[in-house]
Amino acid sequence: MSETEINNNITALFNPETVAVIGASESPRKLGYHVMKSLTDGGFEGRIVPVNPGSTEIMGIPSSPSIDAFPDPIDLAIVVVPAQVVPKIFEECERKAIKGVVLITAGFKEIDDPSGDQQQMALAKIALKAGIMVLGPNTFGMVNLHKNLNASFTPDFSSAKKGGVSLVSQSGGVSHLLAFMAMRQGVGLSKVVGLGNRLNVDFAEILPYLMEDAETKVMVFYLEGLDDPRRLMTAAKANKGKKPVIAIKTGNSKTGDKASLSHTGSMAGNHKIYEGAFRQAGILHADSIESALDLAQALVICPPPKDNRIAVLTAQAGPGIAACDVCEAMGLEIHPFKPETQAIINKLLPPLAIRTNPVDMGPVWLDPLSINNIIETVMEDSTIDGIILLTTYASANLELLANISDLLIKWNQRKPLITCLASPPGVWDREVADLEKTGAIFNLPTPERTAKAMAGLCSYGVLARERD
Amino acid sequence: MSETEINNNITALFNPETVAVIGASESPRKLGYHVMKSLTDGGFEGRIVPVNPGSTEIMGIPSSPSIDAFPDPIDLAIVVVPAQVVPKIFEECERKAIKGVVLITAGFKEIDDPSGDQQQMALAKIALKAGIMVLGPNTFGMVNLHKNLNASFTPDFSSAKKGGVSLVSQSGGVSHLLAFMAMRQGVGLSKVVGLGNRLNVDFAEILPYLMEDAETKVMVFYLEGLDDPRRLMTAAKANKGKKPVIAIKTGNSKTGDKASLSHTGSMAGNHKIYEGAFRQAGILHADSIESALDLAQALVICPPPKDNRIAVLTAQAGPGIAACDVCEAMGLEIHPFKPETQAIINKLLPPLAIRTNPVDMGPVWLDPLSINNIIETVMEDSTIDGIILLTTYASANLELLANISDLLIKWNQRKPLITCLASPPGVWDREVADLEKTGAIFNLPTPERTAKAMAGLCSYGVLARERD
Repeated sequence: MSETEINNNITALFNPETVAVIGASESPRKLGYHVMKSLTDGGFEGRIVPVNPGSTEIMGIPSSPSIDAFPDPIDLAIVVVPAQVVPKIFEECERKAIKGVVLITAGFKEIDDPSGDQQQMALAKIALKAGIMVLGPNTFGMVNLHKNLNASFTPDFSSAKKGGVSLVSQSGGVSHLLAFMAMRQGVGLSKVVGLGNRLNVDFAEILPYLMEDAETKVMVFYLEGLDDPRRLMTAAKANKGKKPVIAIKTGNSKTGDKASLSHTGSMAGNHKIYEGAFRQAGILHADSIESALDLAQALVICPPPKDNRIAVLTAQAGPGIAACDVCEAMGLEIHPFKPETQAIINKLLPPLAIRTNPVDMGPVWLDPLSINNIIETVMEDSTIDGIILLTTYASANLELLANISDLLIKWNQRKPLITCLASPPGVWDREVADLEKTGAIFNLPTPERTAKAMAGLCSYGVLARERD
Repeated sequence: MSETEINNNITALFNPETVAVIGASESPRKLGYHVMKSLTDGGFEGRIVPVNPGSTEIMGIPSSPSIDAFPDPIDLAIVVVPAQVVPKIFEECERKAIKGVVLITAGFKEIDDPSGDQQQMALAKIALKAGIMVLGPNTFGMVNLHKNLNASFTPDFSSAKKGGVSLVSQSGGVSHLLAFMAMRQGVGLSKVVGLGNRLNVDFAEILPYLMEDAETKVMVFYLEGLDDPRRLMTAAKANKGKKPVIAIKTGNSKTGDKASLSHTGSMAGNHKIYEGAFRQAGILHADSIESALDLAQALVICPPPKDNRIAVLTAQAGPGIAACDVCEAMGLEIHPFKPETQAIINKLLPPLAIRTNPVDMGPVWLDPLSINNIIETVMEDSTIDGIILLTTYASANLELLANISDLLIKWNQRKPLITCLASPPGVWDREVADLEKTGAIFNLPTPERTAKAMAGLCSYGVLARERD
């Protein structure tokens, strides 16, 4: 298939009008039941076709005994039948000119038996000949939130917030984990994609598609091992700096690597080599699931910094020092202010205070006007590329947040601003949520996490600048 | 002062019957107001004495014009008057034989002026002569939750859950941050202590006290720099393995170090040297505020592992691989099971599955009895010292958690068990909360964090064994 054909067919896969569920079921013990539930509960507006030779109706929807027997075109087939039946299903898909398959069925390349590999190759042959793009085998499916299409066995994905982050993973478990964390943190999602054992849709195919996808602003990839890492790196390089791509790479330990081979059928391989390749290809490397999601959200909310000169403004010195440590360790510069900026701050803060960057605003924490003016003057300083604002509640500064809210909203991330506004439960929660809703702040629970996210933003800033 | 005298006086400081607030106020613009509010709202059962020459009553409590003028004994004085008045107050404290002072007032050693240092030394002289133990200057105060004593300017601390974690910090900001995170995560607290600029109560004095304190199970120290690190290390070494001590150390970067000097009056100093000293002294080193709190809670809930042989049981392979990576990187061993254990697992899992450690229970996730039996057989395996259990919800395994709850409760952390039970908001939340309430599980949001916490547990296990 040509690149254009691949892209067109993947587009069709994510935007079907008619979806067939091969192996649809009314028994909650079967995955075919959960897939049907995902489609129907998810509010998919196209046509749903349950396929099952033993039924005439499933969940109140008329079913077809086979793909062949269905009179109208089908765009996407979700396959949940046993492995041995899958080749026959693929042949039916070919006859029906179906361009997209979500192959949930497991038991191919990942099994400890050469027959699994052979069967997967046989399927790949049919798919290639017929121009079918296949997610899986051994996938939970995929979700296109903006189309209300939940083509997975997990109906709960449908209640995620619609947004700009697309999650693509070799591991269904990690996809679920990432999506659930996103749901709990209010991160908006675009696509959730389980590549499974990647018959013919791998990261290298999904990346160019998502680069063109209007709804995707940021990609998060979870990968263990790739059979041919060069393909992904080539695709990434060609799109370097166009949209952020964040990779979480596991399988770096002895046992992790071994388990990954059994899991995805690919050796995870040398971590250092991957790190270098990611850097060259312009893929941002996250050291954990948590920091990948932090960075993804930062990239959706904040503009990329022009350079790595960061200001740390803190209402209490300690958290500022914790943030500076991480900033410097990750190559950011806690940069001196312009003389004009420093002069204004010197007027606002008493001589005893730490008035240079990182600025300890503690001495004026009962004076919201001064806090406001310090933040604003740093925002306007052209030698500062990003701001970390740390403010921990204490009874005496209860009004602080309310008093700086207008400034933060007015500023509206003209230069990236990441905050750690910390408070006891029930205090400041509404104010922080309101600020988050307007997109004025991206708030994280610890100073270290703000600094890490800022470092990721700066790395992407470099890539975006290089592209311009 | 002798060690015994110091310990007795610190004990008195944390367990006063009569508390005077020097600088009590009815104006919310004054810290003396917030301190009064903390004491009264916190439900302190002893006597509260507001001291203010200009009042006869504050918040409905009869006040005294001075310490001298108060007829009865005072055990603890919380001082919130301007710096220049403090020496006079200290002399009054000496006359009154007050043994504990919380000196909230700032403007001593941390100021950029030699007079600050001199004044602090003068105060230290009085304190030494009079046998007064002083928290501060420049502290937010302290809280002894089990005594309903909130001797700080933050009334909200009183609503923290009572428990076994004591937080001791050089930074008020970090104390607040840690305490608020603990409150949000349901971590029970014992003492929250702001050392401030450590007139004569430093980590070296607080550590032996908390080692004897029945309510403290685990200590978390936040430190930037110490004038004489040897004193802390000596105190820690003498108590090695008695109770866990976790240290977060910042001020490791160029700017962090500089800011720390202005903040606490001490150079933060070389990070590597501190790391080595912590190791020798049996202090557990946490790389972030987040992991310090994770580890503290793990140490409260889980028994210390006998050795570092860990089992990873996972309902989905990917999260298991992520956990194994961190386990191995932190020196844990993903250890082979006993042949008997492996034989049982082999019977329960199909041949295709990853059946050795890390065990992928995915193939039987719809079969709660098999999951139960796998977990139980690994729990009983004497060659396994700790278990990481990772289970991500999917619609088809909704009942999984309910089905293993009895086993987890029965097991009751006989061997440490850390979980990552991940689900969309509203699903499994009650079940997880119930399990947490019984202490059956310690649950964390990502596999990496479970592994990190387990590694910390194992480090403490070594120290505890060496002591036995």
